[in-house]
Amino acid sequence: MVTEQKTADVSFDSLLRIFTVPEGPDSTLTQIEDKLSRNLNQFLREHIVAEEKPLREIEKDFSNAHIPEQPEFVSEHTEHLLDSLVSHSVHTSSPSFIGHMTSALPYFLMPLSKIMIALNQNLVKIETSKAFTPLERQVLGMLHRLIYQDNDQFYSRWMHSANHSLGAFCSGGTIANITALWVARNNALKAQGSFKGVEKEGLFKAMKHYDYEGLAILVSERGHYSLKKAADVLGIGQEGLVSVKTDNNNRICTDDLRLKIDQLKQNKIKPFAVIGVAGTTETGNIDPLREIAEVCAESDCHFHVDAAWGGATLMSNNHRHLLDGIELADSVTIDAHKQLYIPMGAGMVLFKKPDAMTAIEHHAQYILRKGSKDLGSHTLEGSRSGMAMLVYASMHIISRPGYELLIDQSINKARYFADLIKEQSDFELVSEPELCLLTYRYLPESVKAALLKAGAQQRVELNELLNELTKFIQKKQRETGKSFVSRTRLNPEAWSHQPIIVFRVVLANPLTGNEILTSVLEEQREIAKLAPNLMSKINKLVTQINA
Amino acid sequence: MVTEQKTADVSFDSLLRIFTVPEGPDSTLTQIEDKLSRNLNQFLREHIVAEEKPLREIEKDFSNAHIPEQPEFVSEHTEHLLDSLVSHSVHTSSPSFIGHMTSALPYFLMPLSKIMIALNQNLVKIETSKAFTPLERQVLGMLHRLIYQDNDQFYSRWMHSANHSLGAFCSGGTIANITALWVARNNALKAQGSFKGVEKEGLFKAMKHYDYEGLAILVSERGHYSLKKAADVLGIGQEGLVSVKTDNNNRICTDDLRLKIDQLKQNKIKPFAVIGVAGTTETGNIDPLREIAEVCAESDCHFHVDAAWGGATLMSNNHRHLLDGIELADSVTIDAHKQLYIPMGAGMVLFKKPDAMTAIEHHAQYILRKGSKDLGSHTLEGSRSGMAMLVYASMHIISRPGYELLIDQSINKARYFADLIKEQSDFELVSEPELCLLTYRYLPESVKAALLKAGAQQRVELNELLNELTKFIQKKQRETGKSFVSRTRLNPEAWSHQPIIVFRVVLANPLTGNEILTSVLEEQREIAKLAPNLMSKINKLVTQINA
Repeated sequence: MVTEQKTADVSFDSLLRIFTVPEGPDSTLTQIEDKLSRNLNQFLREHIVAEEKPLREIEKDFSNAHIPEQPEFVSEHTEHLLDSLVSHSVHTSSPSFIGHMTSALPYFLMPLSKIMIALNQNLVKIETSKAFTPLERQVLGMLHRLIYQDNDQFYSRWMHSANHSLGAFCSGGTIANITALWVARNNALKAQGSFKGVEKEGLFKAMKHYDYEGLAILVSERGHYSLKKAADVLGIGQEGLVSVKTDNNNRICTDDLRLKIDQLKQNKIKPFAVIGVAGTTETGNIDPLREIAEVCAESDCHFHVDAAWGGATLMSNNHRHLLDGIELADSVTIDAHKQLYIPMGAGMVLFKKPDAMTAIEHHAQYILRKGSKDLGSHTLEGSRSGMAMLVYASMHIISRPGYELLIDQSINKARYFADLIKEQSDFELVSEPELCLLTYRYLPESVKAALLKAGAQQRVELNELLNELTKFIQKKQRETGKSFVSRTRLNPEAWSHQPIIVFRVVLANPLTGNEILTSVLEEQREIAKLAPNLMSKINKLVTQINA
Repeated sequence: MVTEQKTADVSFDSLLRIFTVPEGPDSTLTQIEDKLSRNLNQFLREHIVAEEKPLREIEKDFSNAHIPEQPEFVSEHTEHLLDSLVSHSVHTSSPSFIGHMTSALPYFLMPLSKIMIALNQNLVKIETSKAFTPLERQVLGMLHRLIYQDNDQFYSRWMHSANHSLGAFCSGGTIANITALWVARNNALKAQGSFKGVEKEGLFKAMKHYDYEGLAILVSERGHYSLKKAADVLGIGQEGLVSVKTDNNNRICTDDLRLKIDQLKQNKIKPFAVIGVAGTTETGNIDPLREIAEVCAESDCHFHVDAAWGGATLMSNNHRHLLDGIELADSVTIDAHKQLYIPMGAGMVLFKKPDAMTAIEHHAQYILRKGSKDLGSHTLEGSRSGMAMLVYASMHIISRPGYELLIDQSINKARYFADLIKEQSDFELVSEPELCLLTYRYLPESVKAALLKAGAQQRVELNELLNELTKFIQKKQRETGKSFVSRTRLNPEAWSHQPIIVFRVVLANPLTGNEILTSVLEEQREIAKLAPNLMSKINKLVTQINA
């Protein structure tokens, strides 16, 4: 990358310059930054290539494991990043990128992020974060109040209390869920008599002390994949994550939940936590939280709500009733980098009781001393950045009613899209939107008629062919680069719980207009025509069925 | 914050604007950003108040748990952030902030960070990160090669292999260490016969299958506090983290390590991992890694090196010998946000063998499908930002020889400061620098003489008074705001292993000049005079000892 004429040099003076002298106003990097600041979408449209380059090709640019022996000029390296990295990154903020939960960001967050990074605070302790510590505690307090709606006295008593914590800020929902289950596990196996608690003596001794044969966490079969990781890392084992049946709307069946809990107890397995999902990752449905709370109260389980996605819905007075009962949860996960429109890396877990996190509190000599307000004594992570500042700023600049509008419009848009799909003769809506997620597939009328008419075996065969078709369309549409929907596998009752591959759509981006939704369907219909072999197999089977 | 004349409104159109219209060139936020870009240090000097405001006072600005019902204008909120947050944040990049591992950042990282945040990639999967995935794999490859120095063939075979992983990028050293120990635990308790492995069946059944009474991780008494968290969260229990004696230089005694391992085995406790520390947090010392590797090989233990701090030293050909034997480790933690000068939130764990992480691999339906190259199938965290881009850029712009200079100058500076302390008659160097960390305390000559002369009881009393004095000086110096050193507690052999409070200094900031070191000592000497009561108690005891 270094030109023949000029070579970046390695000397202590030149190194000091990179710490003290900013990029000049005419430098490539400053110009790029300016362009990005002036019009991010134009910048991304210009720099991200639409058509997909095969990953193997991209990998060639990132195949050298040697750390360079020769420095590069900032401007040259920036050009290199534009050509090889930015151009082949994903335009996650594009209005037609509706396949995942990553959406557009408010503009003001870009310069604020730069300030945050320049300040380079470390929130593990007050000595490296000072005002950022009370700020983060306030943000946790705001989210706590959004969920639990305790009174002002509650927050003035606990929000800044050194030995208490209303929750933990963390890198994302996975760590938030692990933290909640860690607390739940430690509280379920706490010190008793001569037993010093699972945190001291470990799981094996805890099980012997409490005379359990195993531990279990219960969640619906739509629970997030990361819960398996949580069960693994916490020593419970993936088999200890017990899957509970869901109804037609992907919501947990509390009858089955009760049944499973009874079965576990009969086998001397302690069900210590039940997770209610508030916004399943695949379909956006919400479990009946109030009913789960009842079951948890009956059976002495920690009630955790994974609202990583749906938690933002609490901002809308028009829709918060969808999460009715969340205030009964012992803990709740919310990701601010999802529908609170914060950049990647802003997860939170909130606990109903200010002393719940005592179960995982820890101290050291040089920081996190007892009685200090260092945030690090109640987090799984250690060093952490000042991301909470971005949540704080957005809460103030957008405000609750602003978030309400964003949430409401996203749900309305999903309903609009669901209606649009239902109007088409060649598409099938597979899951109705409850939040702004829905799933569907391409299903021509004649094929649908045949499916309904087919015997069990033929129906399975036909659905398998349709699954291939859905995969083909989704992949092709992604590669073409005009728009992006994701795909997943569901087991809808309508098709006798057979695995059905579906398109999955998340309509969180406020810039996604109705015309984009129409064109996504049109494009899919056109792509289907590009699979003549598959279509002829489908049509042949349809003919057989009709014969 | 909203003025009486103008009020920010809540309408969908105004919300769309924050997603589409950037801050204007004259806006407060743009102006602040410009100032920061032109001269970060001046910006911080102007905006961060030097003298410390009591935390209780700062908390008053962050005491409202209500999410605002009224939006604020971006400019007004920015002013508010400057006044209440930035002004009371910590100037971590100040050359006289030498108490913690957070240092100055190269300038080019600020605009690059903004690009990274604007791109808002999610590295859990290729569909939301594309070229960032091979980029992160390359960064892991570079760090792997820095440690293990495998040949090009090795990296071209494994670096981009879908079912392998040379490591994991994560938010910081704590998650990196937990990931390494998670892998180690799962490999130690893997599937065997009818037992399906700890990841499936959990710790209790694993212990019964393998007929162990407990599990243990061994680390020197100078190991990082987060390892206790790791032992807790992994179900091993804090008591399973066995502390091994250190020598005069804070390095693990391998004799004691062998002894402890034998004792554990006799008690049917499985020692499954030994952690070598490469750069202890408190003193910067490095364990004899080669010797530990030998012990691990003898006793079938996973050998993990916590080089969160010291790993960057490998960049220096002049000092990498200090970490001799690190290439024998099964896994290594390195924090790029420490001495690789990356903003907060860039931890990494590297594994010697490309298939080690299979022990924690996981999949899902809608992402992380088997055979995909999605990074999320080998990470504890889920959604993650594109931080790896900043490491990549720094590797290219600074290059290895540039990092070498940064490392070398920091170590030389620490040696200079150690000599300077030794020249003073009223200071005691408590730990010699091996990397760029050292510890010392204020100890007037007459007091030192008395200490050496005193009987056991009087020596303890005198050291306790000195501990009070060190705490007083450290706190006062921090509050005054001119410079900052941290403090910790050591048990030096010189004082019969009595707990001694010391000043702790980290000299990573390349902008810290020798004159700052001189003035830090002068200031501490002056502050000591502000504690006449304590000094008179000390002098009284000295007189008694001399009597």
